[in-house]
Amino acid sequence: MKRIKVSNNVIRRLPRYLRKLDELSDAGIDRISSGELGRQMGLTPSQIRQDFSCFGEFGQQGYGYNVLALRTEIAKILGMDRNFTAVLVGVGNIGHALIDHFSFSRYGFRLVAAFDVKKEVVGTNIGDVPVYDIRDLRGDVAEMKPDIAVLCVPRTYANTVAHTLLDTGVKGIWNFTNVELDIPETAMVIENIYFSDSLLALGYYLSERIDEMEARAARKRL
Amino acid sequence: MKRIKVSNNVIRRLPRYLRKLDELSDAGIDRISSGELGRQMGLTPSQIRQDFSCFGEFGQQGYGYNVLALRTEIAKILGMDRNFTAVLVGVGNIGHALIDHFSFSRYGFRLVAAFDVKKEVVGTNIGDVPVYDIRDLRGDVAEMKPDIAVLCVPRTYANTVAHTLLDTGVKGIWNFTNVELDIPETAMVIENIYFSDSLLALGYYLSERIDEMEARAARKRL
Repeated sequence: MKRIKVSNNVIRRLPRYLRKLDELSDAGIDRISSGELGRQMGLTPSQIRQDFSCFGEFGQQGYGYNVLALRTEIAKILGMDRNFTAVLVGVGNIGHALIDHFSFSRYGFRLVAAFDVKKEVVGTNIGDVPVYDIRDLRGDVAEMKPDIAVLCVPRTYANTVAHTLLDTGVKGIWNFTNVELDIPETAMVIENIYFSDSLLALGYYLSERIDEMEARAARKRL
Repeated sequence: MKRIKVSNNVIRRLPRYLRKLDELSDAGIDRISSGELGRQMGLTPSQIRQDFSCFGEFGQQGYGYNVLALRTEIAKILGMDRNFTAVLVGVGNIGHALIDHFSFSRYGFRLVAAFDVKKEVVGTNIGDVPVYDIRDLRGDVAEMKPDIAVLCVPRTYANTVAHTLLDTGVKGIWNFTNVELDIPETAMVIENIYFSDSLLALGYYLSERIDEMEARAARKRL
């Protein structure tokens, strides 16, 4: 695929488009205008056209977008057809929840193994995912050559494990440790899930909402 | 506090500033220029000055920012001093992990109760958080009047529970269900943690990285 540099904002919107297109498709809608898509997503039609133009031409003037074709293109742009493989390190609550409930395959990833330290879980299978001893992490991962690792270890181990993964040639980390890893962007693709950032944003919007409500109430009293 | 409309991009950067300032403070650094802060965060100095100017003046020309003072201001903007209260609904793996490992208090939220359906867990305490029967959700929440609810129920129950919470006057939902809730923005502040969006973004950046590596390898072979 030819690659042009696309802004992070556009890339972050692609999964949202995907969810929306899946929803439309589930509802039996097979064509949508940029105007209608924008209305449903809180974006302007021109922003939508501009987003998609980064990757080529998907729509047709006066005809709109074919929902399934657009969905296929976006999935391809996101690499969902590349059969990425993943291992998960740290089968605590979060790790366990991801193995049990998160559909990696739906997003183009195959979860091939998990690693943990606890005797009770090492050697078992969770669903169809085998759990190996974390002491074998280096050797096993070097052999398995997964594309990414899902990092769910306690925060004190985050950087040590991340560096082991880097050494063994893992190309990306999906980081649930809430620790900023000290690995440069050039060495590895790192995607962080910071629960705190999300909760703090919620706190901001909530404060704003409460202030507005109070200001309205105050105006009424005048 | 006087409120001006601030762009979502700026708001989303505030928690990142907060993390960076905590890190600087932990390292004993008490003053930083916008240039150095920008370098460490991958932002331009003018972007940083512009971000902070949305909320007033924090820095001094030629002097830089006082790390602690700036941290205090950002915490205030994010509502961290407002003593928000929260309940958590659905003590599965994710819910359990949040109660056990996520420091709500660190971000200005007090987690006062959890709700679940399972007999083994109802009536127990997890840490210092009591778990109540989800059948009492409506009555209990109406009485407790929490500011937000952390929604961790299975996806099939997401909208039902969300509407119950809305009915009882909860003002915000931190949504871990991976379901887009059918509640309008005007009725409630909803902050979604979409694991899939994050993994798909990782897939994009990974694809880009792999394509670049292959292109480089191909050029070498020529």
